[in-house]
Amino acid sequence: MDFKSIGFIGLGSMGQPIASSLLAAGYSLRVYNRTASKADMLVDQGAVRALIPTEVVEPGGIVITMLTDDKALESVVSGENGFLPQLGQDGIHLSMSTVSPALSRALAEQHAQHGSRYVAATVFGRPDAAAAKKLFVNLSGSEEARSRVRPLLEAIGQKITDFGDDPGAANVVKLCGNFLIGCAIEAMGEAVTLAEKAGVDPVAMMAMFSQAMFACPVYQNFGLPIAHKQHEPAGVELKLALKDLNLVQQVASSTTTPLPLANLLHDRMLSAVAKNRGQWDWTALALGAADDAGLNLTEK
Amino acid sequence: MDFKSIGFIGLGSMGQPIASSLLAAGYSLRVYNRTASKADMLVDQGAVRALIPTEVVEPGGIVITMLTDDKALESVVSGENGFLPQLGQDGIHLSMSTVSPALSRALAEQHAQHGSRYVAATVFGRPDAAAAKKLFVNLSGSEEARSRVRPLLEAIGQKITDFGDDPGAANVVKLCGNFLIGCAIEAMGEAVTLAEKAGVDPVAMMAMFSQAMFACPVYQNFGLPIAHKQHEPAGVELKLALKDLNLVQQVASSTTTPLPLANLLHDRMLSAVAKNRGQWDWTALALGAADDAGLNLTEK
Amino acid sequence: MDFKSIGFIGLGSMGQPIASSLLAAGYSLRVYNRTASKADMLVDQGAVRALIPTEVVEPGGIVITMLTDDKALESVVSGENGFLPQLGQDGIHLSMSTVSPALSRALAEQHAQHGSRYVAATVFGRPDAAAAKKLFVNLSGSEEARSRVRPLLEAIGQKITDFGDDPGAANVVKLCGNFLIGCAIEAMGEAVTLAEKAGVDPVAMMAMFSQAMFACPVYQNFGLPIAHKQHEPAGVELKLALKDLNLVQQVASSTTTPLPLANLLHDRMLSAVAKNRGQWDWTALALGAADDAGLNLTEK
Amino acid sequence: MDFKSIGFIGLGSMGQPIASSLLAAGYSLRVYNRTASKADMLVDQGAVRALIPTEVVEPGGIVITMLTDDKALESVVSGENGFLPQLGQDGIHLSMSTVSPALSRALAEQHAQHGSRYVAATVFGRPDAAAAKKLFVNLSGSEEARSRVRPLLEAIGQKITDFGDDPGAANVVKLCGNFLIGCAIEAMGEAVTLAEKAGVDPVAMMAMFSQAMFACPVYQNFGLPIAHKQHEPAGVELKLALKDLNLVQQVASSTTTPLPLANLLHDRMLSAVAKNRGQWDWTALALGAADDAGLNLTEK
Repeated sequence: MDFKSIGFIGLGSMGQPIASSLLAAGYSLRVYNRTASKADMLVDQGAVRALIPTEVVEPGGIVITMLTDDKALESVVSGENGFLPQLGQDGIHLSMSTVSPALSRALAEQHAQHGSRYVAATVFGRPDAAAAKKLFVNLSGSEEARSRVRPLLEAIGQKITDFGDDPGAANVVKLCGNFLIGCAIEAMGEAVTLAEKAGVDPVAMMAMFSQAMFACPVYQNFGLPIAHKQHEPAGVELKLALKDLNLVQQVASSTTTPLPLANLLHDRMLSAVAKNRGQWDWTALALGAADDAGLNLTEK
Repeated sequence: MDFKSIGFIGLGSMGQPIASSLLAAGYSLRVYNRTASKADMLVDQGAVRALIPTEVVEPGGIVITMLTDDKALESVVSGENGFLPQLGQDGIHLSMSTVSPALSRALAEQHAQHGSRYVAATVFGRPDAAAAKKLFVNLSGSEEARSRVRPLLEAIGQKITDFGDDPGAANVVKLCGNFLIGCAIEAMGEAVTLAEKAGVDPVAMMAMFSQAMFACPVYQNFGLPIAHKQHEPAGVELKLALKDLNLVQQVASSTTTPLPLANLLHDRMLSAVAKNRGQWDWTALALGAADDAGLNLTEK
Repeated sequence: MDFKSIGFIGLGSMGQPIASSLLAAGYSLRVYNRTASKADMLVDQGAVRALIPTEVVEPGGIVITMLTDDKALESVVSGENGFLPQLGQDGIHLSMSTVSPALSRALAEQHAQHGSRYVAATVFGRPDAAAAKKLFVNLSGSEEARSRVRPLLEAIGQKITDFGDDPGAANVVKLCGNFLIGCAIEAMGEAVTLAEKAGVDPVAMMAMFSQAMFACPVYQNFGLPIAHKQHEPAGVELKLALKDLNLVQQVASSTTTPLPLANLLHDRMLSAVAKNRGQWDWTALALGAADDAGLNLTEK
Repeated sequence: MDFKSIGFIGLGSMGQPIASSLLAAGYSLRVYNRTASKADMLVDQGAVRALIPTEVVEPGGIVITMLTDDKALESVVSGENGFLPQLGQDGIHLSMSTVSPALSRALAEQHAQHGSRYVAATVFGRPDAAAAKKLFVNLSGSEEARSRVRPLLEAIGQKITDFGDDPGAANVVKLCGNFLIGCAIEAMGEAVTLAEKAGVDPVAMMAMFSQAMFACPVYQNFGLPIAHKQHEPAGVELKLALKDLNLVQQVASSTTTPLPLANLLHDRMLSAVAKNRGQWDWTALALGAADDAGLNLTEK
């Protein structure tokens, strides 16, 4: 290994198990989170707690970020007390957040101006997959940086797919994946509504589909809750999913790509927020089809 | 077994392997197909060839139908030389075609008037799954008939789901399943278009998705062809898929269920036909998103 | 005039004032309506009441039909006691109903086989426009028949547009016009919802639009009711408008023409029926946008 | 009048004739435009040319702005050399641009902090309507300011509608109006495509509609070009119209208002840009329906 200790900023539901897997794989970590208590478990596991973001960064080292959105990421990089100046010559910023490709591209340029490198690595998988080193990782950015971070990613993922030099590519892939999941949710919402209106048990139907041609995590995880109209407690809040969808639509607009399904998802989510379901799980967008069909929802 | 030989009408791409599995399981079959040559292989396997539909039917026995559409099914049941009068008291019509629930309900009544019973059993799986006895079977109709046909279905399917007394229920499930597959195709079409316009390799992306959260037959079978814009030769012709979608929309209309995704699929298919892609595989509906985005398709 | 008396079948809200205008213009009429009492006023005005449809028809004469739908029209033409055999050589059927172009084309062939002619003349305008001879008339069918019926149409319309030989053309025009009106209703529904959610008075806004760039009957008649969410009593029942929209979608399907707006209107109407608004005026489809936006409708 | 001379910033296709009408009504004007030559005609008419924006503003006076977008407006108000500090106590900014309601609300607060007032007055009508004092004007903002600017607006408009205190209201109305026009364009595009595919002359049809139930400027101005697929030269460039539509969608998002028609318009416009029609008139969005239906467009 060509680095002593790795910086890690952002210890939310995904950041925490990823950091933990890195510790388990033998890496030394300095960790930072705005709400300091989220670092406690990692400190017990051997991590060093930092009190400000810049403190986790070593000149020429590697810093990993896993934050909520574009704004949060920009802030720790180049806001007040941002770590960019500190990262220094040959330093690497391994950026794992779901942010816009445009931000990744802009940050890559900023890093280059400081002699450091920016590489994006987005992941698919739930927190338990992160803990079990079973994530699917998408990697893109400068070639040299990609090879330097690969061992770290192998410690958390079951498969790493390389999407080349464009630092925004890994973000595009993440957004496309979330978009596809959203589409599946809407499709299931419509299918179970049709079944219900036609007198067929939607639960038995979704149970069958998710053992047959749709025997995969998205349909297995979401099919039954949608059939049961069970959307609390939230895994991912609908309001947050709406922010990710906005990124999808931004990319679509900037690349002149009409996406009717993204529009439909957006309308379903706006409608859900308007009906006070913004705090529910984002699968609640599937209720739109039931509403349109006049099904009486027993509000929870 | 409470019957001597079973009748089988309709030896297309699904009917043939199903009949073959029944023979392999020890059942005697009398088979009929409009194009007689399609029965050859089954005759070699021991089936008896019939020259007219009614010839396959024994009073009080079981007749299986696997035909193209409502019209074809109605014709063999109650058209000129239809088998309904012949099926007789306690006979069972096991109907496996993708037809409208309304037709199943109407036929169930007609059979009841003749003392026979109608039971619907729709299947998911490709022809090779039928040969390997790996189909997913959905069953509905009169209770007694359901239990009498179960052994036959166990000879062809890996799982049988019972949807109760409504003879149309199994058809609703089939239509919902096809609808969900169509939605996944459209979603993949939009996602790969967005990726391509944003400079990301859609093939690598779909390969990854179909190993990760979408590791199931629909995405694995269709993801790469869609990413490659490869839609010939046809597995299921787009024109035929459009006929199935029309059934979905009929059920939606008659149950007052708005289905925006069914509309979108319908428009994509109409557009494909208008652009002379009606003979291509139905995954070609995914090209609509690429057309809208101005991607130059190299026509094949 | 080359005929003694004209037959008129169908005395609904449009048929009655049209027949009345013809009487006022000096034509002799024999009239038939299933509910006989609807002929009373016309009989007072000089019309002769017929007890069965065929009774209104003179061999070689002209018969006008203004009926609800394809089925009703087919029935008086070629159902039991249909007038087709009676109309005879050189007779003319002037068909004014909102029916499918396919039916018009089929009827034109049937008439030709009997030596008579079919000509379609659809109209735009409300009942009061029919009474005031202010209808807009669209005419199509065989050339000779078109010139023979022109004087009659001049007695009821302010403008006659000739769409040539295709007997279905006038029906296509009628369906396109209804479709455009439906689109305007949906658009207004969305605009007033946006205004309301953004804190702007939708009534003042629609009042202004319909004096400005939208100073025409559709926006003037429907803008304020939509802004006020006032959809009872019905001018045209939503359920009936849905039947007309089905004709639009039939033409779209048979000509492979994707029409996303027709789909949207269809879903809005299905949803309205599902929410028990089928008896309201068809402008109630505009409420869909308000529902989606979570606006609390005070149910009437 | 309680002011000596009025400032006018932004002399584009609408600004110029409005300023001209004010001069004709007897007002003294100081005018500014980035491209100075656009002021020539007004100077001939008696206006005083200013070389920088602030030069047109008198403390306590009235300044009118008619600019392209949010950014341009913000820049002349509070950018470098912005006029806000100069406008002073009791000064009034009469803002006529098509900008976001959010910007109007923000500017109103900024003006209030400087003791001046912001009032929005958006207009409908083409440049020739501005010259003929026939505009439709929508007014909103602080009550006192509304009454002070009314005489000016009466010099350019045939009707002024007052939308109350919210400075953003007039902008919402403008966006709703543009949205409704866009919807009418799309609807006409679909209707003429259906007509063409069904063998009916779309030109004759649109000519008739725009004399009948759609006898108003939007359908009269746009119906025939759409029927003829004639979209050059541009009145309003599609690319610019897309910017206005983005404002509609911003308001929709921020007020949680699903607008399926706005999405459809957005996709049609994105697609048009992707197909190199961004410089055409915005009615070219209507070509999307023809493309979908496989009609061969003779590219211009």
